[in-house]
Amino acid sequence: MFRLYGYWRSSAAYRVRIALNLKGVAYESVAVHLVKDGGQQRQESFRLLNPQKLVPVLMLDDGAALTQSLAIIEYLDEVLPEPRLLPADPLARARVRALSLSIACDIHPLNNLRVLQYLKAVLGHDQAAVDSWYRHWLTEGLAALEAQADPKGPYLCGDQVTMADLVLVPQLYNARRFKCDLGPYPRLQAVDAACAKLPAFEAARPENQPDAEPAP
Amino acid sequence: MFRLYGYWRSSAAYRVRIALNLKGVAYESVAVHLVKDGGQQRQESFRLLNPQKLVPVLMLDDGAALTQSLAIIEYLDEVLPEPRLLPADPLARARVRALSLSIACDIHPLNNLRVLQYLKAVLGHDQAAVDSWYRHWLTEGLAALEAQADPKGPYLCGDQVTMADLVLVPQLYNARRFKCDLGPYPRLQAVDAACAKLPAFEAARPENQPDAEPAP
Repeated sequence: MFRLYGYWRSSAAYRVRIALNLKGVAYESVAVHLVKDGGQQRQESFRLLNPQKLVPVLMLDDGAALTQSLAIIEYLDEVLPEPRLLPADPLARARVRALSLSIACDIHPLNNLRVLQYLKAVLGHDQAAVDSWYRHWLTEGLAALEAQADPKGPYLCGDQVTMADLVLVPQLYNARRFKCDLGPYPRLQAVDAACAKLPAFEAARPENQPDAEPAP
Repeated sequence: MFRLYGYWRSSAAYRVRIALNLKGVAYESVAVHLVKDGGQQRQESFRLLNPQKLVPVLMLDDGAALTQSLAIIEYLDEVLPEPRLLPADPLARARVRALSLSIACDIHPLNNLRVLQYLKAVLGHDQAAVDSWYRHWLTEGLAALEAQADPKGPYLCGDQVTMADLVLVPQLYNARRFKCDLGPYPRLQAVDAACAKLPAFEAARPENQPDAEPAP
């Protein structure tokens, strides 16, 4: 059985959970606590799995360890083609990848836990400055995505769920956690609502993971 | 003829130039100056092409505008399969994508011009703090990549040039520009040297672009 090394609140792991659920793949969850013990992802045992010290890692039945959420999703789409997470047409695939990367490269890494920790611990910023930083990159990225979303919906790239939706939904989950105003992004909110109706997305929600912690 | 909207020093545009050269595609370069005029990528004419206000954009013969360098490279590899920039085997493809994303998501966006500008202009840091920030994320990322590089070489994932090399070479170019010590990464340096011998990489170098500026 596949093993997914993740963390309930990691949005990169969240993307992969949705993909596994959509593909109907049973998997075992292995929790890697990103905060406890100074970050379990930094421990030697995990570093042997992924020198990048980041979740998720998907371990296949033969022990091969796949890293980077988008690479994992593309792999799953190649070996388990139904339902397709990338369309067949090259131009349509490029569009799905571009929207996925616009979040995965240009929003998420800037607002990742390790970066927020650096802003506080090394650069000495307070929570207000960190929150402004978070919202700045989120706002930049979501404004562009809102303009690029398929106006007909219901999903980000049209009438089929694609990899881009798997990246958007966890990002919006995070945005709400940081109390960002999603009012300016009605199309993105509609995509989020359409996805929320699908059991694969529901089961992947952070609150529904075995390592989820109760709200403080 | 394809039109590539880029900037000589943009490492994302640099990746796409290498891909176009390897595929033997003639293209017209359109310079978008990222510093002059407050950043020409922020002007309305460019935003219509790419709401993300980032280079590169590849415009196809029919006017379709592709964004996000990795999505553009995957598109080129799908429509012009020779030479392959991603191997045929799904597991090998996942590895090439993971190494590419480990730079494109986890090093480059943190050290992008707009982020360095924010650290200075909004958060008020001096050049020394910005340089430390730059080197911190670079060092984290390159150390992992050095551990993941194929020890036999000559390229990052073995005996064929892949997308991962197209992402590594511009990142190392940037690292040198920021005077980062590449001594701890002998495998990555060897990959860089192997790529430098190929005309497609040489022609794509920032200094060899029509909009290159003389050293100050």
